[in-house]
Amino acid sequence: MKFIFVSHGDLAKSMLASAQMIVGEQAEATAFGLYPKDDIGGLKDQIKQAIDDFGGGNDVICFTDLFSGSPFNAVVSMMGEYPIYHITGMNLPIVLEAFMSRMNDELTAREIAEKLLKQAPETIIDVNNYLSVNLEEETN
Amino acid sequence: MKFIFVSHGDLAKSMLASAQMIVGEQAEATAFGLYPKDDIGGLKDQIKQAIDDFGGGNDVICFTDLFSGSPFNAVVSMMGEYPIYHITGMNLPIVLEAFMSRMNDELTAREIAEKLLKQAPETIIDVNNYLSVNLEEETN
Repeated sequence: MKFIFVSHGDLAKSMLASAQMIVGEQAEATAFGLYPKDDIGGLKDQIKQAIDDFGGGNDVICFTDLFSGSPFNAVVSMMGEYPIYHITGMNLPIVLEAFMSRMNDELTAREIAEKLLKQAPETIIDVNNYLSVNLEEETN
Repeated sequence: MKFIFVSHGDLAKSMLASAQMIVGEQAEATAFGLYPKDDIGGLKDQIKQAIDDFGGGNDVICFTDLFSGSPFNAVVSMMGEYPIYHITGMNLPIVLEAFMSRMNDELTAREIAEKLLKQAPETIIDVNNYLSVNLEEETN
């Protein structure tokens, strides 16, 4: 299972680096950024090369930063040609879960993507609400 | 309305920088990272100083990368002392929505936080599923 992260600016690279601070160095994971002066074609070429290097996309999940942004569109433009999975709106909990999930060799890209999407809504948390509920429980 | 972003490594700084690539330079927004050799006390001091600089937390929302991580815990440790809001599991769509929402001066930190949390589950999207549904609609 291979992962490609794509974003505006350094977000994708930092997402990968910060994930690696927690789960350790990861092979078969790469990140690309689109910068203000960049040509979108250059980004597409980088993504295409990475998918080819990763064996053609049968076990590749791409993570992008923002629905309908240019990095998102660059990945979408590959989806006709390659059988990649694509999740947008990535955050650190989802990326960490992806790295944990691929340690299970039996899971396919589709199964991992489905698992991540199922967990996604629970990964963004209202901490004030969480703490007040937990403090109440402790008091009762 | 002021925003503080906190994460492992450079993720928070890149999140802010990438958001600014889209919505332009933003005042009253700052980002801190925790690095492998850092002391958690130093990070807490930076956050505390930022909240003080921002007027004591009445209109401050903190965004962290990961539930129960050290950056998360550093912000939680401020929540007894300061009336800040705290959302964890940040992603770019939520951060962009936060910057858009604060353009409306009438919204309080609580109202913006509630709005963001309500939208959160929709910000992480299964693009394969999204495209197949939309292609089907186009074909029919």
